[in-house]
Amino acid sequence: MVLDRLQQLTLQVNASSPPPYPLDPLSTSEIDTAVAIIRAEHGSVNFNAVTLYEPRKAEMLAWLADPEKAPRPLRAADIVAIAPGGKIYDGVVDLENKKILQWKHTPNVQPLITMEDLQEVEHIVRQDPAVIEQCAIIGIPKEDMDKVYCDPWTIGYDERWGSGVRLQQALMYYRPHLDDSQYTYPLDFCPIYNSETKKIIHIDVPPVRRPLSKAAPNNYHPAAIEKEGGYRTDIKPINITQPEGVSFTINGRIIEWQKWSIHVGFNYREGIVLNNITFNDKGNIRPIFYRLSLAEMVVPYGNPEHPHQRKHAFDLGEYGGGYMTNSLSLGCDCKGAIHYMDAAFVNRAGASTILKNAICIHEEDAGILFKHTDFRDESIIVTRGRKLIISQIFTAANYEYCVYWIFHQDGTVQLDIKLTGILNTYAMNPGEDTKGWGTEVYPGVNAHNHQHLFCMRIDPNIDGPNNTVFQVDAVRAEGEVGSAENKYGNAFYAKKTKFTTPREAMSDYDGSTSRTWEMANTNKLNPYSKKPVTYKLVSREVPPLLPKEGGLAWKRAGFARHAVHVTKYSDDQIHPAGRHVPQTSGEPSQGIPMWIEQAGEDCSIENTDIVLWHTFGITHFPTPEDYPIMPAEPMTLLLRPRNFFDRNPVLDVPPSYSRTPTQIASGQGDCSCKKGDGTSVLV
Amino acid sequence: MVLDRLQQLTLQVNASSPPPYPLDPLSTSEIDTAVAIIRAEHGSVNFNAVTLYEPRKAEMLAWLADPEKAPRPLRAADIVAIAPGGKIYDGVVDLENKKILQWKHTPNVQPLITMEDLQEVEHIVRQDPAVIEQCAIIGIPKEDMDKVYCDPWTIGYDERWGSGVRLQQALMYYRPHLDDSQYTYPLDFCPIYNSETKKIIHIDVPPVRRPLSKAAPNNYHPAAIEKEGGYRTDIKPINITQPEGVSFTINGRIIEWQKWSIHVGFNYREGIVLNNITFNDKGNIRPIFYRLSLAEMVVPYGNPEHPHQRKHAFDLGEYGGGYMTNSLSLGCDCKGAIHYMDAAFVNRAGASTILKNAICIHEEDAGILFKHTDFRDESIIVTRGRKLIISQIFTAANYEYCVYWIFHQDGTVQLDIKLTGILNTYAMNPGEDTKGWGTEVYPGVNAHNHQHLFCMRIDPNIDGPNNTVFQVDAVRAEGEVGSAENKYGNAFYAKKTKFTTPREAMSDYDGSTSRTWEMANTNKLNPYSKKPVTYKLVSREVPPLLPKEGGLAWKRAGFARHAVHVTKYSDDQIHPAGRHVPQTSGEPSQGIPMWIEQAGEDCSIENTDIVLWHTFGITHFPTPEDYPIMPAEPMTLLLRPRNFFDRNPVLDVPPSYSRTPTQIASGQGDCSCKKGDGTSVLV
Repeated sequence: MVLDRLQQLTLQVNASSPPPYPLDPLSTSEIDTAVAIIRAEHGSVNFNAVTLYEPRKAEMLAWLADPEKAPRPLRAADIVAIAPGGKIYDGVVDLENKKILQWKHTPNVQPLITMEDLQEVEHIVRQDPAVIEQCAIIGIPKEDMDKVYCDPWTIGYDERWGSGVRLQQALMYYRPHLDDSQYTYPLDFCPIYNSETKKIIHIDVPPVRRPLSKAAPNNYHPAAIEKEGGYRTDIKPINITQPEGVSFTINGRIIEWQKWSIHVGFNYREGIVLNNITFNDKGNIRPIFYRLSLAEMVVPYGNPEHPHQRKHAFDLGEYGGGYMTNSLSLGCDCKGAIHYMDAAFVNRAGASTILKNAICIHEEDAGILFKHTDFRDESIIVTRGRKLIISQIFTAANYEYCVYWIFHQDGTVQLDIKLTGILNTYAMNPGEDTKGWGTEVYPGVNAHNHQHLFCMRIDPNIDGPNNTVFQVDAVRAEGEVGSAENKYGNAFYAKKTKFTTPREAMSDYDGSTSRTWEMANTNKLNPYSKKPVTYKLVSREVPPLLPKEGGLAWKRAGFARHAVHVTKYSDDQIHPAGRHVPQTSGEPSQGIPMWIEQAGEDCSIENTDIVLWHTFGITHFPTPEDYPIMPAEPMTLLLRPRNFFDRNPVLDVPPSYSRTPTQIASGQGDCSCKKGDGTSVLV
Repeated sequence: MVLDRLQQLTLQVNASSPPPYPLDPLSTSEIDTAVAIIRAEHGSVNFNAVTLYEPRKAEMLAWLADPEKAPRPLRAADIVAIAPGGKIYDGVVDLENKKILQWKHTPNVQPLITMEDLQEVEHIVRQDPAVIEQCAIIGIPKEDMDKVYCDPWTIGYDERWGSGVRLQQALMYYRPHLDDSQYTYPLDFCPIYNSETKKIIHIDVPPVRRPLSKAAPNNYHPAAIEKEGGYRTDIKPINITQPEGVSFTINGRIIEWQKWSIHVGFNYREGIVLNNITFNDKGNIRPIFYRLSLAEMVVPYGNPEHPHQRKHAFDLGEYGGGYMTNSLSLGCDCKGAIHYMDAAFVNRAGASTILKNAICIHEEDAGILFKHTDFRDESIIVTRGRKLIISQIFTAANYEYCVYWIFHQDGTVQLDIKLTGILNTYAMNPGEDTKGWGTEVYPGVNAHNHQHLFCMRIDPNIDGPNNTVFQVDAVRAEGEVGSAENKYGNAFYAKKTKFTTPREAMSDYDGSTSRTWEMANTNKLNPYSKKPVTYKLVSREVPPLLPKEGGLAWKRAGFARHAVHVTKYSDDQIHPAGRHVPQTSGEPSQGIPMWIEQAGEDCSIENTDIVLWHTFGITHFPTPEDYPIMPAEPMTLLLRPRNFFDRNPVLDVPPSYSRTPTQIASGQGDCSCKKGDGTSVLV
């Protein structure tokens, strides 16, 4: 029967259109094929992930260089499965030849917690006698257990149980009414759930108890707002329309827009993955990035009281930025003319699923792109810009992360992240001292200090894969004031430090030098400046990891110890905190620190294929205005071309208005008939 | 005759509508009145500025508190005039009683250089025999002198002439054709112009000469683009329309929008000035800022070779951010439904002038304001935000500064600045070494390193004028890893340092602690957090002043020595580099350093009326993609409410889509009928 199913799937695939692009995510039928192949060989396992086994870069680059002659990269699936007894298997399935290339039992790891894993905990928590007892102690009667909720998190790491048993910690809440926000009623104890036995195995109970808050609900849903006086009525609509359609074309998953070409991938872990990013520079297709993604993040909380040290979620590695992605809705999440892409996943039982509208692609007006007026005669040019935005939003229990990959016409790539959703909260007694580790944002609600640290994986391809990273600091010249070389003291310059090894490249942000990092191709110089063609990382929200060296979060989140790490490219180094993140002890630290250790002191990262890992984010000290739901907090960083183009690459964007000195002298181009956009109006 | 004119003006004023709001800029008739009063008394003087003499704050606050009983603040004009012989007079004219309140000769200062002052230099430069001779030396024949241009700058400061004689330095260029960008042909010498005698008094000639560049023009005007292949044709229009009009109302110059109330002022110096910024918090009108403006800036260049040390323009203090403001055009500078405000100035001859469309006021969609999805049942709320933007653009010779004061519904005030326009350029010989002080952005064109440092004047009024400033650093807890108080090392907190004196408050940015500064009213605590109501300055583009301590730019730009200064409020302290900036020596340093010195060690800035001065900006190392015109480079900072509101103040913004658990359970609010905005479309 299994073979029949395989044959059937093969027929489906063969019957369909051209083969998928090598970087395309697996289709549902490819997922089904992979599952069937595994099932045929290994019987009943649960699936944690079935995703594209990405083409080896060397093969991919060879094929890109010569798609006619070079072999097309193999289409394969990367699989994580959990066999009975909790045994974890990492596998690779060749989807073309229908065979298993790898099937490896990986001991003592825990793959990420899926939404299905999360969903089952609440039900069991409510029925657990010890939990019911704890609820009673803080004032929740047994008959109210249907009002008890939990946000299950992976346990992170707890030395009492280590990594061998698959565990979740249940952050507990109470909802007086189904529509109330539960975050107003955090409970003070924390059950530990064994995902394999589906039992509560322990409850962490604090030494000082905090009875259930008696504060009134604090809600954001419409009925609550109506009750408090209703919605404001003075916001007039702003309509954004594109009567002639969008300015991009999509072929499969390759977008062409304003000289950019971008392959839009997606996986359960990182969410959006952008590949083969090139720019058409006067007919010359120039590679810029081979791959860009948000590869990991960590959200350490700053309250040292047990067991809050376990709150340092790796949202991508522990839950999956793809798995948690929202299905977006037109005119709500993005406005204008929207192109959506869906995402295909596997569920635990091995069935493929589809998440509709996982990725939003749209354009926005970008304001003034450039402008100049000559003060002599008011000759002028003003040109408006446009941007292309590829976005997703994922919900990590309480928090929402809105991720916007923004392409500008001038060659700039911008990553914007908006944080919204709800603060993680903990119970506090009336008059209790937060000791500075949190803020009482509402009576009985302690929102702990925390950081959101993201790790952006940048695989540069600046006019080719052989690149070098420089740290750039804006510094004063050495010459003292009054000296011949710096008489007036005004000399300053860009001090560039070349990174030659991964150890040298472990570098921190320095606001006092406006530090940036450059990814350069030193083999190719700009014809005018004679400097290497470069993309510069300009990132200003770069707090250090505040958990201390040697502590739990520091050990587990090795990638976050520095703002920048640089490694020599390796196909298997995608996940900076390791392939399987839950329940890593950090001894040794997985991912980047291990790779750098393994690479040794002699590893050269100069003029070779490298990856730059950038950790950035914010430190959040909550306040009442963040509650009961948080107005979006923005963050941004830029990747900017420097010495990459010979000149401003947007001069051929049609101006909104232009008038030359000659036109002015001859009375042409009167100010009163400025062109404008034809739809703006005076009020 | 003068008296007749005065009577006539008085009649005009009386015949018009209600008296202007005390903070409104002077009208043309008020300017005319002030000029007539001065003329009647002091005869023929040239006018440098006639602007609102702002109401004394104590009087203004008293009147605001009780407009019926308190006296209306006096309407007066603040005047700078230049009498024959170059004598500078600072005056104040009472416009109500038509009398001069002050008329003071101020020796040894130079008021700013007006556009009229600038305009006259080029004509004279072209005819000066010594300039003609220098042109000939570098290859420009006499008959081409009509192709020679100059960007006149104030001399800044040159110790050879000091402050007594009003001087400009002429940065020289050549334009092969009227429509060519002159910045491609910088000349290597620099004439000094005496504004009083209208003569070139000296020429700074470099030791090594740089003949006129023979490179082809590098232009951005349409004919040049057409010649190079024409404009791209693949950008489809994006229309932004507001069919029901705007969401703000304007009464005089007071804007009411989304619970904000803002008075929009404008002067020749700072440009936009925002006063009386309040927020309607559930019916309670809460003051937040008394006055916000960009009060000064300095653009130091980093090339130590003589005479480039003089290139450190104070664009606001030396030229006027109002005087240099662009007249904006619909659909070019801003899109949508636009409300403009004009600006009135005086010219040198004493006539009032009007600049149309100096200020643009419009709304924009602000993306997601907040969102949350419950992972259990996909109950959801997603609410889009709106922003109000009050903007101006000014042209400082080569550069354009686009200034956007942005108000968000959640109480955040954002200042965005976009830099565009053209790099200041200097000549270089083929193969010349820039020595790292600049970049060859095109053959023969050396664009020097420089900084753009802006000084934002923040006069907080956080629930009243008595405020205190705290420096806030995100820091690790003291307890070591393994200690009882910080076993896992994860503890961190917001360390707050109160500033009690202006000397203590001289503080720098620290990226390693994500430093912010809070303006707090310590007399009023948030009912939940028990922390003072606060606005926090979140600013991440905060380079130090790179010119060295003791050097010329450091001495003159005292305000830029620290990211933050705090002073006790004084009506006369508006201009952080002094009232008259050109040709200050910096000995002593005018403005902030002098005020702090004068205030003495005992001056308290705790729980009193204070002003926070924030210097921020960027350090710019040019590259060829910035040339021949620069794609806009963005900068941003935020003023955010913290512990100011009891809860998220935007919960009553109507959601784009909402569905509660109850609705989901009962089958209401189907996903397929999400509301959206009715105009967005799928592509």
